[in-house]
Amino acid sequence: MSVKFAVLGHGVVGSGVVELFYKNKKSIEKRAGTEMDIKYILDLREFPDSPYQDKFTKDFKDILNDDEVTSVAECMGGVEPAFSFVKACLESGKSVSTSNKELVAEKGDILLRIAKEHNCNFFFEASVGGAIPIIRPLHRCLAANDITKVAGILNGTTNFILTKMYHENMSFEDALKLAQDLGYAEKDPTADVEGHDACRKICIISSLVYGKHVYPRSVYTKGISKVQLCDVAAADVLGHAIKLIASVRKQENGKILPAVMPMLISHENIMAGVNDVFNAVLVYGDGIDQTMFYGRGAGKLPTASAVLGDVIETAKAKDTVLSQTWESINNDLFVDDIDNLKNRWYFRVPAGSNAPEGSYEHESGISFITKDELTFTQAAEMSAELNALAFLPVFE
Amino acid sequence: MSVKFAVLGHGVVGSGVVELFYKNKKSIEKRAGTEMDIKYILDLREFPDSPYQDKFTKDFKDILNDDEVTSVAECMGGVEPAFSFVKACLESGKSVSTSNKELVAEKGDILLRIAKEHNCNFFFEASVGGAIPIIRPLHRCLAANDITKVAGILNGTTNFILTKMYHENMSFEDALKLAQDLGYAEKDPTADVEGHDACRKICIISSLVYGKHVYPRSVYTKGISKVQLCDVAAADVLGHAIKLIASVRKQENGKILPAVMPMLISHENIMAGVNDVFNAVLVYGDGIDQTMFYGRGAGKLPTASAVLGDVIETAKAKDTVLSQTWESINNDLFVDDIDNLKNRWYFRVPAGSNAPEGSYEHESGISFITKDELTFTQAAEMSAELNALAFLPVFE
Repeated sequence: MSVKFAVLGHGVVGSGVVELFYKNKKSIEKRAGTEMDIKYILDLREFPDSPYQDKFTKDFKDILNDDEVTSVAECMGGVEPAFSFVKACLESGKSVSTSNKELVAEKGDILLRIAKEHNCNFFFEASVGGAIPIIRPLHRCLAANDITKVAGILNGTTNFILTKMYHENMSFEDALKLAQDLGYAEKDPTADVEGHDACRKICIISSLVYGKHVYPRSVYTKGISKVQLCDVAAADVLGHAIKLIASVRKQENGKILPAVMPMLISHENIMAGVNDVFNAVLVYGDGIDQTMFYGRGAGKLPTASAVLGDVIETAKAKDTVLSQTWESINNDLFVDDIDNLKNRWYFRVPAGSNAPEGSYEHESGISFITKDELTFTQAAEMSAELNALAFLPVFE
Repeated sequence: MSVKFAVLGHGVVGSGVVELFYKNKKSIEKRAGTEMDIKYILDLREFPDSPYQDKFTKDFKDILNDDEVTSVAECMGGVEPAFSFVKACLESGKSVSTSNKELVAEKGDILLRIAKEHNCNFFFEASVGGAIPIIRPLHRCLAANDITKVAGILNGTTNFILTKMYHENMSFEDALKLAQDLGYAEKDPTADVEGHDACRKICIISSLVYGKHVYPRSVYTKGISKVQLCDVAAADVLGHAIKLIASVRKQENGKILPAVMPMLISHENIMAGVNDVFNAVLVYGDGIDQTMFYGRGAGKLPTASAVLGDVIETAKAKDTVLSQTWESINNDLFVDDIDNLKNRWYFRVPAGSNAPEGSYEHESGISFITKDELTFTQAAEMSAELNALAFLPVFE
């Protein structure tokens, strides 16, 4: 038997899926244990130079109505029409593998339920961390653990900018410009720089780990546009780097607390060494202690690798429903308020005669102080009291 | 329906499996989608203080002949009687999950074939990298890649010793003594220190990735007992750490080249920052570029976490055969000779007036030189020519 699949969208990721599949077709079929081929590529545009002319269609119904197609790779991005297309595929029993983090973060609960009802799979390994295997390890390999915290560098663009600020003393503005010139950042960089992209990814991880859907609007999200070079330098004096950390932890009150914010992270933590456009996810559990996954979080072939890994799994798994489900829930009942985050904080304070008691003045003229166990509100109050010029949480 | 499983062996790992299972039973059952329980624990010893008295048996046949037991966790270690027990379980259709690297490295091909013939699974996530999910990601998530190289720090004991030498200037002998005092090294540390443990693990990875069984006796293996403090210091001057690296790469002649040896690794490579007893595996592929997996490579609960992850998978997968198979093969036809390793080399050479041309003399009095693209034989010849005091390959 041969498995035929369709690719929805022929942009960066979709064309990568086609390219990588035909490059490694022989070994992919060996690993899948079955012959495989792409039957359709859906895109409204023309690709006259593509060697796969005969596979292109502009009509989604060609795919939906073809019973020979049992598996679909969705690489269009955005919520619509991706949601309608994926929903229709799952309802007709076709398994779907997607790279679309927005779709999973907004509609994952609904699509997973439909997949289960129709005895097929909805996979989304590519939606978080690009090439890094994280979704499958989290809900399979680490299934025996009580997972207490997950923290990640989940956005390559901001990590590139922070790396340039740290290693090359570049300003935020110059580093952003360079990222745009290199194609790492969009012309409108808001989604990356303000943390929205990382927010969607921590929503997916939170939902998967804790079994209830967490929506992006429920997550406290702060980006890196306010991070200043002098804070990066001060963090270094303290033995820390500044990274945009997306994290989720179990709270004592039974809720979970997801958040995205720039944080100081000690160089003793291996995640502080994750630089440039690389991503990483650190998982804490009662069995494993800690485990980190590292790799390219974006890009044509890395993301295609993750999508195809899922497609191969749909070919192997056939009727067994291997994808997890998570419940729909009112997030007020499940997501804790950010002010319940007790944390260590860094404050950059005035130097010289205005320096508050207990602060450390470095030879560069930067003065700072750290305080333990403060909530968000307390940290803001402390900042006012210290006349602080900036304050940031410290990753623990 | 409820899934009953048995645990073979109640040593460090086996008792960890029992402990972690009952600690997280509720969430494990939720993730497995079925009720689960341990029906037997096999051990010849008595455990009068165990709360699970009623589950202990000294007779393997109790487990083998009980049709209610569909899944078995093998945590005994060693080739026999583990091999006979695992074989018998698979032949009667019971899936097996093992932490036993020796068993997999020596007999993996045979056991995987038997599992497939009997429509059950043989899983071994815990046999490499302890808590780190690496087996399943390698043959599932990265299945779309042409994997060109895998390199890992696969032995925690030697990594602990090298970390102490690097960070605390401790001699090999003192660091080994400390590792023994802390319980990280055995009284007879040969298997760790001389690289045999890492060798078994790279055999398993090589077999899995390249689809043909690689036996430990086919792998060039050198340990760390000859690594000297002055080489660790010289490597640092060069911007490198020394790590025991187990690696396998595809050769141009179609063979693969696995090896275990101490190597210099640049601090720019994230694996150089893997310290203490932690392990890591770095995978290079044409889709992913590079991906690293990091975590605790040994210990009671970390290893138990990996075994239980597999057991949960056997409960979910039921009759679908998800484990990979690999072929038995004459290793002479598949494993390349170590002298076909072309590499960059570091040579520690005499200082002062005896220093060879082009060598670098550091203020500490250590002199060294590096040379590119030398085979093993050429490096040995060069070492004699330079009157080198030590020479080591550089990880690239």
